[in-house]
Amino acid sequence: MTDIAAGETITSPLDVNRFSPDDAADLPAETRELLDRRRGTLGDVTPLLYRRPVHLVRGEGLWLTDADGVRYLDMYNNVASVGHCHPRVVEAVSRQLSTLNTHTRYLHEGVIDYARQLLATLPAAFGEMVFTCTGSEANDLAVRIARHVTGHRGVIVTAGAYHGGTTVSAACSPSVDPAVPDWVRIVPAPDPFREGADESVRSFAAAVARQVDDLTASGIGTAALLVDTVFSSDGIQPGPLGLLGPAVEAVRAGGGLFIADEVQPGFGRLGEGMWGFDRHSVVPDLVTMGKPMAAGIPVAALAATTRTAEAVGRKVPYFNTFGGNPVSMAAAQAVLDVIRDEGLIENAAARGKQLLDGLAPMRESFAVVGDVRVAGLFAGVEIVGAGGAPDTATATAVVNTLRDRGVLLSTAGVHGNVLKIRPPLPIAESEMDHFLQVFGEVLTDLP
Amino acid sequence: MTDIAAGETITSPLDVNRFSPDDAADLPAETRELLDRRRGTLGDVTPLLYRRPVHLVRGEGLWLTDADGVRYLDMYNNVASVGHCHPRVVEAVSRQLSTLNTHTRYLHEGVIDYARQLLATLPAAFGEMVFTCTGSEANDLAVRIARHVTGHRGVIVTAGAYHGGTTVSAACSPSVDPAVPDWVRIVPAPDPFREGADESVRSFAAAVARQVDDLTASGIGTAALLVDTVFSSDGIQPGPLGLLGPAVEAVRAGGGLFIADEVQPGFGRLGEGMWGFDRHSVVPDLVTMGKPMAAGIPVAALAATTRTAEAVGRKVPYFNTFGGNPVSMAAAQAVLDVIRDEGLIENAAARGKQLLDGLAPMRESFAVVGDVRVAGLFAGVEIVGAGGAPDTATATAVVNTLRDRGVLLSTAGVHGNVLKIRPPLPIAESEMDHFLQVFGEVLTDLP
Repeated sequence: MTDIAAGETITSPLDVNRFSPDDAADLPAETRELLDRRRGTLGDVTPLLYRRPVHLVRGEGLWLTDADGVRYLDMYNNVASVGHCHPRVVEAVSRQLSTLNTHTRYLHEGVIDYARQLLATLPAAFGEMVFTCTGSEANDLAVRIARHVTGHRGVIVTAGAYHGGTTVSAACSPSVDPAVPDWVRIVPAPDPFREGADESVRSFAAAVARQVDDLTASGIGTAALLVDTVFSSDGIQPGPLGLLGPAVEAVRAGGGLFIADEVQPGFGRLGEGMWGFDRHSVVPDLVTMGKPMAAGIPVAALAATTRTAEAVGRKVPYFNTFGGNPVSMAAAQAVLDVIRDEGLIENAAARGKQLLDGLAPMRESFAVVGDVRVAGLFAGVEIVGAGGAPDTATATAVVNTLRDRGVLLSTAGVHGNVLKIRPPLPIAESEMDHFLQVFGEVLTDLP
Repeated sequence: MTDIAAGETITSPLDVNRFSPDDAADLPAETRELLDRRRGTLGDVTPLLYRRPVHLVRGEGLWLTDADGVRYLDMYNNVASVGHCHPRVVEAVSRQLSTLNTHTRYLHEGVIDYARQLLATLPAAFGEMVFTCTGSEANDLAVRIARHVTGHRGVIVTAGAYHGGTTVSAACSPSVDPAVPDWVRIVPAPDPFREGADESVRSFAAAVARQVDDLTASGIGTAALLVDTVFSSDGIQPGPLGLLGPAVEAVRAGGGLFIADEVQPGFGRLGEGMWGFDRHSVVPDLVTMGKPMAAGIPVAALAATTRTAEAVGRKVPYFNTFGGNPVSMAAAQAVLDVIRDEGLIENAAARGKQLLDGLAPMRESFAVVGDVRVAGLFAGVEIVGAGGAPDTATATAVVNTLRDRGVLLSTAGVHGNVLKIRPPLPIAESEMDHFLQVFGEVLTDLP
């Protein structure tokens, strides 16, 4: 069901744009020394981006500064979605950290107020929040809940999916390891660029329906369809609108739930409301969220419809020591306040239009630009060779050249050939112009 | 293998000392209103401590203050192990949060420096760290790694174990749900109070060996023995010293690894070095740590011996978005600095002796005090009835009366009858005296 066969070289975003110790010889002595110390403490498991890793020391707004004072325009980091080191977040965290930091087994106003405001951004069907520390934990818990509610075990995910690092959320992440257990079923993400818009909707729903049937036939049953609502790690597929509806219907017909993973698209990035699923006019049973939620303080959450929450009852007891603590909630509250007060969703829409207007003509000007997909401040630019075939090598070269010219972004997609553009939301018009200019230059200079 | 049968009422610490909405009628109107709002956003899944929940608004050192200005001596919270709202932690977090907060895919000195210092507190065999956000994630990853290294699936845990909330770490937590999957095997925690010291060592090792044999015979195989090295949720069993050795030998003979869960005992609490396993003169293959690591900023970690890390290679790719980020590391570094600079391990030893000297005579003075177990600033007081039988109701009454008299602690153990005493490490002599006095009064006043 996927074009990555088990055992084939993994081409997850982490692996394509990844530093290899083989390239260390060309680096400055200071970087080599730091890399040696890193290897002596963290080993090789924790990946580093870029052929020449970036050693950052400061961040402000859209800009990051390295140890040599070189500045980079951040076109990639979603965690700092309100801008690096936003003073309101710093102030809120500092104040709460010097006042009280305990856990949700004592009463505290912060977590209740924040949960109420967050629920208000979700469809009326949603009635309950659980706070975790990571999107991995939220997705893991969502799968546990879906299994209890449905009595089934199977989870359907896309071929390039990344849903986290716990045993269960990693099993639901074929982008990291395509050798998935029998209860994980892989469907190709929609690919309107190659299939055409209508066919991509039809074929996605058909693939999901086939897996539902097979899970039913095998006795595993369908617990859930778990998808990132903008297919981030599959290479960013924001459309066609309404795409998710038929697939979700197929899953529900098989007794399964729909879990919307909003860890990447959520919190206004797509420039139309808070959540990616809203654009597709579907109401999930469970929503997971994380990354940009609290500006880098580890905060994530799961929202459940009242109906789902009632079906679970207390069958899945859960307590998270740090989840929903007063400092985490103060950080999350500050982020939510900034999104509203600074009009960041509106800015994502306006700057997203500017991005689309700048990128779209490049499909004509540059043969390597195969497709341009933009929703608010989340864009995928597909780098292709002859006949529209994915060109991973050129995509990696573009990313590394951009890094050398002071612009940070990375890759996505099962072939690692899609440039992933995902800047902090307060990007200014001039900053977007700067990006478009440098990007055009890098494409022009390609050999 | 356990005295909790599957399906029997769960008596985890969470459930014994837990608020029930049935008791709401007796509470003040303000608390009821807050409880209603909490239920309308967080539902009933996230538990609350005490018959009359505590609504906290401020913390400083050993003291917590509620919304009515009532002060509580904190004899329970391990997360704030350097004391509530320690100014050095506040300062370090505020400074780093206003400077830079990204992730480990860029180079940063903070994570490397901290990992080096932490590795220096572990036996020389340890060579590599992975940072996560929660102990749940660290234990989940430890099990994943143990499975890859050994090629086996089975995990042996104790009957009252709590190792986390992910699907896999929750499966390893019979204290929350004793209905475990076939690859989790439960052994009774050592119980020297009832078995005698020597017999408790022998019977623990024998129970582990039986499960190793059975896992081998069933084809599941033993991936790991996973235990909290002070058996915190089993009711705190700090001795006899050397206890773990024979059990670990039995697991290794079956090809399994030993994972030391230091989430509760670690970071100096036991008053003898940093780690609980040190006291038992065993060297684990993997060590997990969390709770007190960064004063409530969600930070946890996994340490691996060089041998284990080499056996894994890159077979378990792992990236944690928030894990090891500059702010998390600044918080963790401040905690480590405070432990050293304020001599908190020495204080844990001295105040632990004061605690033992105060509690030990109560075995004679009060019939309900069945056993007193103390290691540094971690103590379990077993509340018993006739013939030494666990008396959960009296333990719960003691905990709630202490709460009403301004002292916070809770319960542990498979019967929930062990008072769990685990104050922040900087407790002063006068504060310990205050606790001992109030505790004696509460026991005296028991009906």
